[in-house]
Amino acid sequence: MIGEILCVGTELLLGDIVNTNAAFLSRQLAQLGIGVYHQTVVGDNPARLKQAVEEALDCSDLVIMTGGLGPTYDDITKEVTAAALGLPLVWNETAYERMQSYFARTGRVLTENNKKQAMAPEGSVVFQNDNGTAPGFAVERDGKTAILLPGPPSEMEPMFLRQVRPFLEGKTGLTFQSRTVHLFGIGESAAESILRDVMEAAQNPTVAPYAKTGEVQIRVTAAAENAEEAQKLLAPTVEKVCAMMDGYVYGVDVDSLQKAAISALKQAGLTAATAESLTGGGVSRRLTEVPGASAVFLGGVCSYTDEVKRRLLGVKEETLKAFGAVSAETALEMARGIRERTGADIGVSTTGVAGPDPSEGKPVGTVFVAVSCGWFEQVLPLQLARGTGNERERVRILSENHAIHSILQAVWKKEEGEKHAKDI
Amino acid sequence: MIGEILCVGTELLLGDIVNTNAAFLSRQLAQLGIGVYHQTVVGDNPARLKQAVEEALDCSDLVIMTGGLGPTYDDITKEVTAAALGLPLVWNETAYERMQSYFARTGRVLTENNKKQAMAPEGSVVFQNDNGTAPGFAVERDGKTAILLPGPPSEMEPMFLRQVRPFLEGKTGLTFQSRTVHLFGIGESAAESILRDVMEAAQNPTVAPYAKTGEVQIRVTAAAENAEEAQKLLAPTVEKVCAMMDGYVYGVDVDSLQKAAISALKQAGLTAATAESLTGGGVSRRLTEVPGASAVFLGGVCSYTDEVKRRLLGVKEETLKAFGAVSAETALEMARGIRERTGADIGVSTTGVAGPDPSEGKPVGTVFVAVSCGWFEQVLPLQLARGTGNERERVRILSENHAIHSILQAVWKKEEGEKHAKDI
Repeated sequence: MIGEILCVGTELLLGDIVNTNAAFLSRQLAQLGIGVYHQTVVGDNPARLKQAVEEALDCSDLVIMTGGLGPTYDDITKEVTAAALGLPLVWNETAYERMQSYFARTGRVLTENNKKQAMAPEGSVVFQNDNGTAPGFAVERDGKTAILLPGPPSEMEPMFLRQVRPFLEGKTGLTFQSRTVHLFGIGESAAESILRDVMEAAQNPTVAPYAKTGEVQIRVTAAAENAEEAQKLLAPTVEKVCAMMDGYVYGVDVDSLQKAAISALKQAGLTAATAESLTGGGVSRRLTEVPGASAVFLGGVCSYTDEVKRRLLGVKEETLKAFGAVSAETALEMARGIRERTGADIGVSTTGVAGPDPSEGKPVGTVFVAVSCGWFEQVLPLQLARGTGNERERVRILSENHAIHSILQAVWKKEEGEKHAKDI
Repeated sequence: MIGEILCVGTELLLGDIVNTNAAFLSRQLAQLGIGVYHQTVVGDNPARLKQAVEEALDCSDLVIMTGGLGPTYDDITKEVTAAALGLPLVWNETAYERMQSYFARTGRVLTENNKKQAMAPEGSVVFQNDNGTAPGFAVERDGKTAILLPGPPSEMEPMFLRQVRPFLEGKTGLTFQSRTVHLFGIGESAAESILRDVMEAAQNPTVAPYAKTGEVQIRVTAAAENAEEAQKLLAPTVEKVCAMMDGYVYGVDVDSLQKAAISALKQAGLTAATAESLTGGGVSRRLTEVPGASAVFLGGVCSYTDEVKRRLLGVKEETLKAFGAVSAETALEMARGIRERTGADIGVSTTGVAGPDPSEGKPVGTVFVAVSCGWFEQVLPLQLARGTGNERERVRILSENHAIHSILQAVWKKEEGEKHAKDI
């Protein structure tokens, strides 16, 4: 099946917003085994929209549109699509009832304008909008399917995941399930070269890598008649990937380093605290992104000067004098200091040179990440710059990653020790 | 002039990366007075790319392409564009020399493969790539202009700003200059309703609003024969917008709240420190984004528990008991505490309920932001939730904004006081 993504909105053509919908939908369709050859963006202009819809329906079996379902006169996606399919636009009672319940729930008043949003091409399937007013629709004719979704990602994404995806699975007769193996400490190309044979041989499930700053994820996707069968297909490949990437895997389906760290702390009944220099609070910012982090994350200090390192973390003046603020010795005293001062089980610290200029004679990218707990201490000396200009943000994010990963390592060490003690 | 943006890359169609290039280029073209009716994404498939290039050249005066200029066999943008324009692909010595100097500068070796990157459609203008290997090109035929740029934003964006933009200004005979008025504390629609008449009447310069989470920017853009004339045209409108938005303006061309705050601190010779609860280090993370922040930002404490609020910030147990951690009283003691403990001139604090669940019987979105200095103290009681589901991230970002804005307010108060003293 060939799909096309058509996003409608003048704000996209003006560059006021970035088109995350196209990326989200493309990725979803790829997971469903639906090939995407084109993504197109057009404005609210009826003639150009009509041409784009007709061309898309001409080239593809499935056209997914976002935007232009609002209540105002320049929201014309439904009108144009109905015309292109040769279908009348009719009142859709299901859509209207669902809109009414949304308005009732959020305590708002449904206006005459909103009634336009309950009109749909004849024969449409309605997708309920849990996060906004405009319902989505799917309509089929002559083997072509058009799916119309609201523009705001906060409305479109949950609607797709909960309703459109099962609808598409129903059409293909297949259910797709994915599991993601999360790696840390290895680059995308190195991971690919280890997994190349597996990736090339894989048919069902498929194996594909995704990279983001300092992290690589391996996604394993299986298609089967039902979820249970798909999960059965997934298990051996996920196990194989984990075994091949041993030493780099920090979790399966864990979402992010910070989520994995908070979960690991909760499961182990441990608490953590942070002492940050070059990351400036980024580590604690990310840990507290996770709802419920307060159960295991106590807090931290951002020490951006030597004096704050001394006053709030107890780093010794001699240490700063002898080794500098950017040193393994200072990193370790910071990690120990925050642990003592907060009473946390695990203290983690970062110090380094984010740039743009060198500091203490140390080049940009020189970073030390330390972790301290009763059962484990470690300082990582790192060089995180690539030498390609302004890397401040990249060096900071990579340092955050290493600090959060160090928390995971500390929890694992504790668990290893306990397992070892039990074995004896 | 009508422009079209055509991005080439299978990684876009798979949704592996978000198409920020289309948004960047659209915004740039809008500023240059060039209308964009279509953005299109196609993969590395020769037949579909050929069709897309031909259609784009057919509909538009100017086609800007990104991606597919690399050294490998599946990089075919130049080949396809040359064919569509009926031009041969020829060796471009200028491009080759510039590539050689880039390789020499970065200490890398130019391979046989890379020579492909020095081929260009006959008659092309070359754009040097300061951040990668692939040069960009512009080629004109029969009143149509095709511009080919590398795909990575880190290469494309500087190339566009430094070379392509002047090239396009040369074609239109006009230079465009913009100034941006930064607002805080007012929503986009409220700002628009104040400025509607000005926006509608404005021809040259034009006046347009841009919104991001909790901030609004008003961009004023003028076209003239040269930069000096354009700046002359801009000045009275910028002044008028500032006067009309009095009380909300925190700067002109200041980039971001955090950059404005760091600049203001530097100029006033003042230092700041942070005490953060619900923002979890986000305020310090943003302040330290700004290179050179260490001159005026000393550090901070992230106090995610009552105990850390007491131990590291000196918040009184009675205060926490009587009013709770989410209260004006606690916020003020946090701001005072961090100021005393770091010796900073200005202490700023955040405490509140980010969600997803209420806390201390206070609803999600209840936030207090305090600032404390020798000449000024203030606590802002805020309600930042909209009641539309998971707002944790939004509530945190808005709280960060208020905290950073409070630093600016503290600096302004000091300056007002000094001006007042001088006047007496």
